[in-house]
Amino acid sequence: MAETNTTILSSTLEALIENKKYATLRDIFVTMQPMDIAGVLGELGENRLPLMFRLLPKELAAETFIEMDPEEQELLIRGFSDAELKDVVDELYVDDAVDLIEEMPANVVKRILKSADPEMRRTINELLNYPEDSAGSIMTTEYVSLRPEMTAEEAIKRIRRGAVDKETIYTCYVTDKNRKLVGYVTLKSLLLAEDDTQITQIMGTDTISVTTTDDQEEVANALSKYDLSALPVVDKESRLVGIVTVDDAIDVMEEEATEDIEKMAAIMPTDKPYLKLSPFEIWKSRIPWLLLLMVSATFTGLIISSFESALAKWVALTAFIPMLMDTGGNTGSQASVTVIRALSLGDLEFSDFFRVVWKELRVAVLCAVSLAVVNFLKIQLVDVWLMHNTSVTVTVNLVICITLAFTIICAKLVGCTLPLLAKKLGFDPAVMASPFITTIVDALSLLIYFQVARLLLGI
Amino acid sequence: MAETNTTILSSTLEALIENKKYATLRDIFVTMQPMDIAGVLGELGENRLPLMFRLLPKELAAETFIEMDPEEQELLIRGFSDAELKDVVDELYVDDAVDLIEEMPANVVKRILKSADPEMRRTINELLNYPEDSAGSIMTTEYVSLRPEMTAEEAIKRIRRGAVDKETIYTCYVTDKNRKLVGYVTLKSLLLAEDDTQITQIMGTDTISVTTTDDQEEVANALSKYDLSALPVVDKESRLVGIVTVDDAIDVMEEEATEDIEKMAAIMPTDKPYLKLSPFEIWKSRIPWLLLLMVSATFTGLIISSFESALAKWVALTAFIPMLMDTGGNTGSQASVTVIRALSLGDLEFSDFFRVVWKELRVAVLCAVSLAVVNFLKIQLVDVWLMHNTSVTVTVNLVICITLAFTIICAKLVGCTLPLLAKKLGFDPAVMASPFITTIVDALSLLIYFQVARLLLGI
Repeated sequence: MAETNTTILSSTLEALIENKKYATLRDIFVTMQPMDIAGVLGELGENRLPLMFRLLPKELAAETFIEMDPEEQELLIRGFSDAELKDVVDELYVDDAVDLIEEMPANVVKRILKSADPEMRRTINELLNYPEDSAGSIMTTEYVSLRPEMTAEEAIKRIRRGAVDKETIYTCYVTDKNRKLVGYVTLKSLLLAEDDTQITQIMGTDTISVTTTDDQEEVANALSKYDLSALPVVDKESRLVGIVTVDDAIDVMEEEATEDIEKMAAIMPTDKPYLKLSPFEIWKSRIPWLLLLMVSATFTGLIISSFESALAKWVALTAFIPMLMDTGGNTGSQASVTVIRALSLGDLEFSDFFRVVWKELRVAVLCAVSLAVVNFLKIQLVDVWLMHNTSVTVTVNLVICITLAFTIICAKLVGCTLPLLAKKLGFDPAVMASPFITTIVDALSLLIYFQVARLLLGI
Repeated sequence: MAETNTTILSSTLEALIENKKYATLRDIFVTMQPMDIAGVLGELGENRLPLMFRLLPKELAAETFIEMDPEEQELLIRGFSDAELKDVVDELYVDDAVDLIEEMPANVVKRILKSADPEMRRTINELLNYPEDSAGSIMTTEYVSLRPEMTAEEAIKRIRRGAVDKETIYTCYVTDKNRKLVGYVTLKSLLLAEDDTQITQIMGTDTISVTTTDDQEEVANALSKYDLSALPVVDKESRLVGIVTVDDAIDVMEEEATEDIEKMAAIMPTDKPYLKLSPFEIWKSRIPWLLLLMVSATFTGLIISSFESALAKWVALTAFIPMLMDTGGNTGSQASVTVIRALSLGDLEFSDFFRVVWKELRVAVLCAVSLAVVNFLKIQLVDVWLMHNTSVTVTVNLVICITLAFTIICAKLVGCTLPLLAKKLGFDPAVMASPFITTIVDALSLLIYFQVARLLLGI
């Protein structure tokens, strides 16, 4: 629905631009959300973008600017006069300015910093120094801080005075004279309190906070777990230095979930949305793991080669290799993906190692027994009885089903332990997902297969 | 870190309970977040949970109650007197009450509804009638609505009077006399306005809203896209009936991402966190797809069986089956997972079908050429030169690499089209992920393999 509307809108705008109806265009833009204006402008092409952008009123222009893609932002900045650039930069929140600067080439960054006022420039430079993906790098310094001895009336006055420049005024933070964070107070409780109530009487002291070096994923998890609209960030001396608001946390959550999903599918994460990526960029994000996994399949090839003569004698065994490998891969990735997601959401820790292994072992035995029994019956029914495949004897069937059972148990154990070990060793558990586990489980299943065949068929 | 603290805290609490230091326990609880109290109480076991819960002050008790797991909630309700139950229910927001009721067995539901006041009972029943996972089912009716002709001062007075019972007071919604939604106004703009400013002058009219039957995923995407803290929900006549706040949207986003990830790994989604699931419940969520995929591997088995004699003659071919199938599966799932995620985030629509196919085709050709070349060199180097495997002739190598290239192209096309088609047909695209694609690509790769072998080796 939204998609169709955009298409209709685009063609209306095209026609208006064609006919130079700029006043009408401006009237349309002011009724729209900045996000949607950015979307529409992004489709207009390099030539008309700057012209259309200049139609927007100052504040709307700045809000739209933040929502645009980096390439379009760069294009606009290169076309801006110094005064125009200053207008946009003045309207930006500090954290948005930092995001922008991180995407721009050096000469554009220089111009942006030049148009920021000295106070903002200093803050931007401070924020840029925090490690990538840390709480410090995504926080904003535009929060409301109150003193414990203030009254509710004074606090509300102070909030009203400073509100325009603050990213949120709905949760305010209480700091002592050394800027140490001592509590928080919501605007709701301030409005409900009597005018002369002291902040100390209504502030909450069970404050959840993070430190500047904490990972952004932890920040997002804390905001989500405690249903907060903002989270204070403190430095090593517990001094309040910034806040992360929930809208930024949502972006982090989506970004981290996408990254996890990509890593689980053997893709190197990229920052851009799919449709913006060139085929070459997509290729670059996909080829490394494909190459690595392809080359590591050499092992499975070697295992099969070394049993060539046995396979030539018991030809039926070959036909079941794909089923054994796929089932092993699927069971293994079920376990690994479950553990990876639980680790990401903070539901699991390395200390749960033995609980996880014990649980997966029991699940594995249940899966192994049920699949082996079904498979035994299926082979007797389909391959022996229906297809009259005489080379599939009951012993061959047993070899297949015993292998299946052991493969499933190994796959589940490998699948649940590798992500936990990766976490412990400081690697990203998500890369231990399906494709990686599949490669290991492939080799394991073949080794089990030929071992069982050797015992039962005497090959 | 958080994990270790909880462990220490748990043993402290154990000791205090042991020594019946109830006053001390109460003092500790009131300094804690409801979420954390719920976590700690959940570990105490059935016998001590009700006792400890009764130590909490009334409001904290209700807040903690919402954060508990359904089993513990049921246990507590069964032990509550009618008065105790009423205390908890009175403190609940309507949407939390609905969530609770959806998890409880019928006789407990009856008791909960009995303790709700008539107004709340009516609202709960209305909300329960919306389809599962719809905007109506997750919204709350406790929002602030204002009239366009009110002044800022009147509005703030009204907000102060009603604030206690509202889920958010920071965005208020403006409705006309027919309850139609005409705009929104933030508390921030109310505080910044002069006392006698009319709401019409400061309200925003570019309101984003959803209807009661919209899917919860759309609601979450809209909140995230437009950086909103709440989203109004309207009925078919555009009348305001509720709001969804950002904290609920975050839960939806996490739930939907987890569901997508589980489906992509061939797991049926479950509501409970991993550590709360019994091995049998985990088995139930994993076995259906495993069974289906195992049985559908019959096809690959049949294909191999029908080329048994050729494989017996060209034994080297067997050794490369796993590599071909795995690489095909990996390339296919890269494409499908990318498309599935973009669909979930609303970055792609079915109307992008040809753009996606054209992009993936070019990526596929790049991947096919690079992997085939590397593989040809690898086989010449490792299998021929290093391992002296005389059965791998240059022609055999060519068969393998040509198959590899075609398999990759087929896999990418299957991988990107199936999720889009699923979306178009109203199925969940996420089930079209790795395991499903792998099974199709396995069969395809074998058919290509034997076809190419027939042409080049004359089998």
